[in-house]
This record gives sequence, C-alpha cells and structure tokens, in this order.
Amino acid sequence: MSKTRPGHFFEDFWVGQSLVHGTPRTLSEGDRSLYIAFTGARHPLHCAAPLAAACGYPATPLHDFLVFNIGFGKTVPDISLNAVANLGYADLRFLRPVYPGDTLTADSTVIGLKQNSSGKNGVVYVRSTVRDQHGQDVLTWIRWVMVNKRNLAAPAPEPLIPELPESVPAERLAIPAFLRPGKLDPAATAGRDYWEDYRPGERIDNASGMTLDESDHTLATKLYQNPARLHFNAQAAGGKRLVYGGHVIAVCHALNYEGLENVLNVAAINAGAHCNPSYAGDTLYASTEVLEQWPLPGRNDLGALRLRLVGTKNIPAAEIRDRFAEHNGKPTYHPNVVLDLDYTVLMPRRTAMENR
Amino acid sequence: MSKTRPGHFFEDFWVGQSLVHGTPRTLSEGDRSLYIAFTGARHPLHCAAPLAAACGYPATPLHDFLVFNIGFGKTVPDISLNAVANLGYADLRFLRPVYPGDTLTADSTVIGLKQNSSGKNGVVYVRSTVRDQHGQDVLTWIRWVMVNKRNLAAPAPEPLIPELPESVPAERLAIPAFLRPGKLDPAATAGRDYWEDYRPGERIDNASGMTLDESDHTLATKLYQNPARLHFNAQAAGGKRLVYGGHVIAVCHALNYEGLENVLNVAAINAGAHCNPSYAGDTLYASTEVLEQWPLPGRNDLGALRLRLVGTKNIPAAEIRDRFAEHNGKPTYHPNVVLDLDYTVLMPRRTAMENR
Amino acid sequence: MSKTRPGHFFEDFWVGQSLVHGTPRTLSEGDRSLYIAFTGARHPLHCAAPLAAACGYPATPLHDFLVFNIGFGKTVPDISLNAVANLGYADLRFLRPVYPGDTLTADSTVIGLKQNSSGKNGVVYVRSTVRDQHGQDVLTWIRWVMVNKRNLAAPAPEPLIPELPESVPAERLAIPAFLRPGKLDPAATAGRDYWEDYRPGERIDNASGMTLDESDHTLATKLYQNPARLHFNAQAAGGKRLVYGGHVIAVCHALNYEGLENVLNVAAINAGAHCNPSYAGDTLYASTEVLEQWPLPGRNDLGALRLRLVGTKNIPAAEIRDRFAEHNGKPTYHPNVVLDLDYTVLMPRRTAMENR
Repeated sequence: MSKTRPGHFFEDFWVGQSLVHGTPRTLSEGDRSLYIAFTGARHPLHCAAPLAAACGYPATPLHDFLVFNIGFGKTVPDISLNAVANLGYADLRFLRPVYPGDTLTADSTVIGLKQNSSGKNGVVYVRSTVRDQHGQDVLTWIRWVMVNKRNLAAPAPEPLIPELPESVPAERLAIPAFLRPGKLDPAATAGRDYWEDYRPGERIDNASGMTLDESDHTLATKLYQNPARLHFNAQAAGGKRLVYGGHVIAVCHALNYEGLENVLNVAAINAGAHCNPSYAGDTLYASTEVLEQWPLPGRNDLGALRLRLVGTKNIPAAEIRDRFAEHNGKPTYHPNVVLDLDYTVLMPRRTAMENR
Repeated sequence: MSKTRPGHFFEDFWVGQSLVHGTPRTLSEGDRSLYIAFTGARHPLHCAAPLAAACGYPATPLHDFLVFNIGFGKTVPDISLNAVANLGYADLRFLRPVYPGDTLTADSTVIGLKQNSSGKNGVVYVRSTVRDQHGQDVLTWIRWVMVNKRNLAAPAPEPLIPELPESVPAERLAIPAFLRPGKLDPAATAGRDYWEDYRPGERIDNASGMTLDESDHTLATKLYQNPARLHFNAQAAGGKRLVYGGHVIAVCHALNYEGLENVLNVAAINAGAHCNPSYAGDTLYASTEVLEQWPLPGRNDLGALRLRLVGTKNIPAAEIRDRFAEHNGKPTYHPNVVLDLDYTVLMPRRTAMENR
Repeated sequence: MSKTRPGHFFEDFWVGQSLVHGTPRTLSEGDRSLYIAFTGARHPLHCAAPLAAACGYPATPLHDFLVFNIGFGKTVPDISLNAVANLGYADLRFLRPVYPGDTLTADSTVIGLKQNSSGKNGVVYVRSTVRDQHGQDVLTWIRWVMVNKRNLAAPAPEPLIPELPESVPAERLAIPAFLRPGKLDPAATAGRDYWEDYRPGERIDNASGMTLDESDHTLATKLYQNPARLHFNAQAAGGKRLVYGGHVIAVCHALNYEGLENVLNVAAINAGAHCNPSYAGDTLYASTEVLEQWPLPGRNDLGALRLRLVGTKNIPAAEIRDRFAEHNGKPTYHPNVVLDLDYTVLMPRRTAMENR
C-alpha cells in the first residue's frame, strides 16, 4: 500500500463527509511583506500599523486575500488534487481579522455531488471553513469543483445540488464592532472618493497592467502551501504552468486600487469564476463595476459596495466591451477574460470622514 | 469625472506646491529578509542584531536603500507617474536609522520648474522628505524629473532652477550620537580595510556580477509599492519592462561590498544618474572610485568616504575605461553604463578598531 | 594591493588552519516565510507555532535546511569561491534548534588536503561549525571541495585524507530533551504513517515535480548570502546560472513530504553528493528509499529513519531504475540524477501517537 496519497476522486466523496485538512500555518510579518511583493497591494489597512490602530484594530490585520489563499491551499490535497476545473465560489465571508502570530487550520464538509453525464467525472460542492488557533472561524466559503473518477464503473451518487445564495446580504457581513473607519487618515490613500461617491452601474477601468512571470506566481503558490501540480510542474502541465487562480484574484484586486483607494477590506465574495487560464507572460488588467451600494445596519460611518471585478489578459479590460458572461445558457467568456469576481468591500462613508 | 487618477502633468505643478503622498507603510523583518533576497546584501549592520547592539543601535537598522526605495515609491503617484525620465538626485541625506515597526510616510515640495524648449514637457524639481510615525525626518532628497504636459497649450511657468549643492558636506551628515563603530566585530566582515586604508583616486573593481530577471526586479518594485507602469506592464513598456533604478542602485551597492566590506551605512547621495536602462537578462557589474576621504567633526572613531559607484551592464565595469560622463557639455555615457552614483558612506577608523 | 579578495586557492590551505567566516546573520520570520515560498515546505513543526509549542519547543524552530543554507553561505568566501566542484558531505549534525532572533556565525578548520595528480587543483576537507549568538553549536559538517591552484608551481602538501564516518550513528543524534513528539496533532499532516510503518528497503516515489526558474533559485541563494559567482552571473557561468546545490536539497526534501508527512525534522546528513548540475527550466522530482530504521536510546516516543533521497531532473525519479551510483570505482550517475542524499530524520512512534 503506497504511502503517497493520490488525493480524493469523485467516488471518494459523499454528502455530509467531513474533511479535516492538514498543514496548520502560523502567519507572520514575513507573509505580509511577501504578499505585497507578489501583488504591489497598497490598500493601507494591511500595511500601516498606526492607521490600523487608529481604526480600532488591536494589531495590523493581514490582507484578506492572503488569508484566503493560505486557507484555500490547505483544502487542495483533500478536495481538488484531482480536479479538472475549479468551477465557482459562493457565500465566501471574511468573519474575523487575522493578525501575525495567528495560526490557521481548515476543514470542509461535502454539501453536494452531481456526476456528469459523461460518467467520467462529477461536481463536488464543499463548504470550507478556516479557523484560528482559538477555534474561531475567520473565513468560510462554498466552492464547487469538477473532479475525475478513478473508477469509471463506480456508481453515480444521488445528485444533490446545494442551494447557493445569489450574494451575501449586508446583514450577514461580519463588521468588527471596534471598527472606526472615520479614523482613516484621508492622506493615507490617494483616493478622494468614499462610499457615497460611487453609484451602481459606474464602471472604473483601472489603468495599470501587471505582467506575470513564472517565479512570482510559483513563489506565491508555494507560500500558500498549495500543492496542486499544474502550478509547479511544467512537464505535468504540458509545458506551461497554470497560474493559481487565487494569485490572479490577488493581483486583480491590487490593480483595482486605482479608483477604489479607500476600500478598507474585503467582506465577502458573492460569486466568482476563473474564466480562462493565465500563464507567465500574460499581462493582467482589471475593470471594476459597481453593482450595488449598501448601507450597513447600525453603522452610519461605513458602507458596503458590491463590485464586479473583471480581470483580463493581454487586452486592457477597458477595451473588451462584451466581456461579461451570458447569464442564460452556458457562460461563454471572451477568451481574454480570466476572472469574473462578484465581491463586497467596505468603505468609510464621507460623513464619517468629515466628522473625524 | 473619472475616479482613477492620471497623475500630475507638467502644468499641474507650481513652485511652492506641497504634496502629501499616500501609502503609509510599516516596515518589518519581512522587508529586511526580502531586501537581502533581492540584492544578496552582506554589510553586517543591517543583518546581525548583536553587532548592531554592540555598536549602540537600539534595534537592528533596516538597510538604507530599503528605506530609500520604500520612501521613493510613495512619491511616484504624485511626482513621476507621467515622467519621461528620472534625471537626477542631489542632497540626499539619511537622517535617522529606521527599525522594524517604524511606519514611513513621505511628502514633497516643488522647488523648481523649467519647461523644455520643445514645449512638450518640462523638468520638475522636488524636495522629498520621508518621515516616521513620530513625524521625525528619516530621509530627504532633491530629485528632478522630466514630466510630460497634458495640454501642450498650457503656458510655460516662470523658469526656476534651484541651487543644487555639489555634495553633502561632512558637517551635514547625520551621525547617530550613540554610534560606537569601534565595537564592530572585525570578524563580522571579510574586510581587512578601514577608513584610513582608502585613498582618493583609488579604484576598486568589484569582482562579482549579477544577472537580473523579471521576477526579482518586479517583486522588489512591488514590495516598494512603486506603481510606475513601465516596471510592471510589458505591453505598456514596449515588450521589455524597465528595471526600476532604485533596484539597480541596491544591487550595485551590494556588489561593491567586495573591497568595501567595512562600510557601516550610507550617509548621503551627493549626485546620481541612471545613465542607461536595464532589463531582465542584463548582468550588472560595479566599480567604485574613492573620491574623497573626510574626517568627521568630533569623531576620531569614524570617517566618511565619498565614493563614485559606477554600475555597468553586460561588460564588467573594470573593462570600461572611458566610462564616466563628460562634465562639460551634455553627459554622454558609455551605452553599457547604467548607474553613476556619487555617494558618501561611513566606515570605522582603524584606530577605533585597534582600541576596541 | 587589491582590496577585493580573490578567495583562497588550494595552496592557501593547510591542515589545522582555522577560518572564521564573516557575515553574522540574525534570522527572522521573514526568512521562514521566504523558505516556504522557495520550497513549498509543509512539514508542520517549522510552520505552525501551536504545534511546536505542544511538542515542547520554546519557540517555533526554523527549517533545518534554512539553517544549513544560511550557515553554508558563510563558508563560501573562504572555502569554495574558487572551487571546481563541491564533492561531498559527511557527519552533518543538527545540534540545536534555531529560532527567529538567533544570530548565526560559522567557522571552519581544514582537516585534510590532497593535491590531484593533474597538479592543477586539489581536494580540501573542512569541518565547518555554525554557532548561535551564545556561542553554542547549532550545526556541524565535514565537506570536501576541489579547489584550483593559483600557482601551479606551488608544492603539493603532504596528502591527508581524514576519516569520514559512514553515517552518523543514532547515539550521536542530538535530540532535544524537551521534545514530546506524541503531542504532534495527527491532523496536522495528511500522513497516516509513523516510524513503525516504514521498513528498510521500502521506496517512496514522491509524486510531485517542481520546475525551477532563475528568480527563485537566485533569490534563495542571495537570501543565504552565498556569493558563489556561478549562481548569479550568467555571463561568468557560460550563459546558464548553476542552481545552488543547497536549493536543490531544500526543494527535494519538500517534494518528499508526500509519503513522509510525519517527519519532525532532519537530524543528520550521513553523506551527500550533487551528482549533476541543475539549471532554470529543469523540473525536479524526488524518490526516497528507507535505508535503516533506528530506535533511539532512551526514547520510546520517537525513532530515526535513515533515508536515501534521490533527486532527478526532467524524468520522474520513479522512472529511473538504475539511478544509484556504483559504489566501487568512480561514481557514475545517470545524467538526470542531480542529488543523492543519505540523511536521517526523526519521526514520532505510533505508540506515542496512540498514547497522547
């Protein structure tokens, strides 16, 4: 019996199955610096200690997508080592800030299964949760992946597709009680715009682009201890290593700083798709559409913006008019669209900034 | 009205204008490690805690050029996002050591303007200052950049070229009162030479070379949160991303460790020019000339060396005889010279090392 | 007299010579994060603080091969700057855990010399020891390198080949008295196998491969402050920079996590050879053979496994049948074998895990 683990195949999953993932990981200032080196991230809350302190944080929180990527990496050996495709995310919520010194673990529960008509693979739906060293939940999400069968003769499970919320509603966003967004130093960002200044339907074509190289995406993915082979082994990947989708999210979110400088942090991902693969040499661009503008219950100092972040490769997102997927029928993305992320961020209200 | 900021154009500047830059940044041990990974820096003061403590430092200072690059990056969105060329530096002084946990901000004042005869752009002179979380100045410099006009019909400003000191004189160098350079462990470096052992006119051809790659220069520049587009976007940069000049300075200073091992730290940049661009694949070499040897007022344990650090690409600096610029007329550098940096470093005096 | 140091040549060494190496280095959480980014290392003891604490460690130890590589780098300027080949290692023992904040120095003693029959170079045997800021030994090894002569007319020294232990016996392994391996959380790794579950002769073909790029190996080697020129200067290296062997060891050890997840740490290297060079673009694979299974004196909770870790490039190690060297006559490795490392790791005993 082999001591190496081949990962789970489709027939190894059952609804209700609980999977405790390995590789607990203590985060540090080293991870914070590396995340900035990977992305050029400039949102101030995660890189300026006095500002985080002024806003009420007991320490300087680590970037949300660093936390996401570290958590996600833990789930790969048990969920997606034999995945054909990472199909989507839903109901992702950042529940508590994570600070240097915190140790993250992750576990998942299988919440849905559906064998594909080909009989060769099927879709596995999991709810994954990332916890800190006190057992407190810091992040949770649903994702679904297409996983190969090992034994094509294995019987198909009873299909169960879980209910997927269309979005995370405002009242389910986790807002720290201590947060005083009005204490954000207005000079900390170059941005002049606050929550009230955005309008649903508004589109911001972020001006910068970032070219990917082999070392930066592989260093990032190794830091996240994500062992999926197509990201590291050029031979196994047919010559070109696939860029890990979480790196694409992180880069595109850093690119959309321009025009959204006063975003405090990410509160939720409502839905997300990696539309096309990215490889070293591709230049990523971002364009952001404001979908909704939510006041938050009990807070007059802070609002939520629901955004659609579209990442493209090699053509500025601004130049792709019909970039969005069809909603009816199969989604068919423009071949240069690599990311379609529906997510919710928090931003100070102008009133809070004016009454600091 | 667009929410993204196009950066300032030439006609947006006026003499006396004050610019407070965004992106406050707390430095950490993660940044220290990354700086070593980017450069291979070996000068001991910034990487050996017991040695820094013996020399009187309350904590282990971060590398001077890490501090410079972090500070410089903050000024880019407001000063040089639309720059055609970074023309020069003067009167750069490191004023206080920076330690992990310190948070840096930066601001600039426009001190000179001169429209070019073409009418398409002009030179902007700024004094930039980097401050810590207590508002104390840690670093200051003058630089001048050529910036495009947005509107060619905008009137030319009254030309004002500020006085630029030829060098930072010894009495203006900031020497920490606590510094006890004689406590430097002589075994900490491989160098046998101290301040008295150098002579003006002496030239040290540093033996090592370092080949640049895309990921290392882009990771460094992202860590510095410098958003200048030509460093990141291969498409915008005509296929080849320009290596950020501050990375070239950092690498060349690390290369000149050989023969200058007992340099404690950098005190000033008297003048500097990025003579030719560098790209991934270029191999950098360094050669260092001792320009002047200054005793320091009130210190018999420490001296200053004014050095000319010449960085070349693809030809060892030792092999380029006529590498220096013409001083009269336009400077015309050898096409393989990438850096000509006139700077001042501190070094223990032999007498201090002998009476430890 | 040149101020740059050309490094020692063969005739500069004598038996009994003591060399104190420069570049003391304080390690930090930044180095820990970078080591993970370079290798994807997942063994839990070095990345999960609560687990290290539960096992009795006063702080979270840094990865053994990070300590080795940092220590090794210090010896390069004095031992191997003019080396033709790094021939082998013996009697390498990790003596004490190293934690963030510790400062490492290194020194070496020449213990053997033998000029080659060509008269152009010779083999230098050294015992190198890495110490912490308290002067305590943390790591020691013997290595031998082939070093060029500067002056071919220099007389050959009396040949002395030191006795090289075939392996580090169990009783010489340094096991911390505080270590409580049974406190390892069984969920921390994906591994189900403990010390009793391995058998001499068993071979584990680790499934993953990792493609090397220029930036990741050069960033690692610069972090280790290893100035050997062939790793950095593509021109000096004939166009292709040689990957530092310590990076190959680190990557191959990370690859053999699969099937050896419950390895706590590395206790010793018995013997090791870099069989063929690696370059950017090569994909590394690992295969591990269990050579011996040692109980440890006075410990019923912990055992040692002596392993042979074979690293290959571009062909999975599993596919190379005759991968090992001839033991009689000159070793002739398969051209795709890059590493043959005989080393000893510690692993909890199943009994300890069952009585936690």
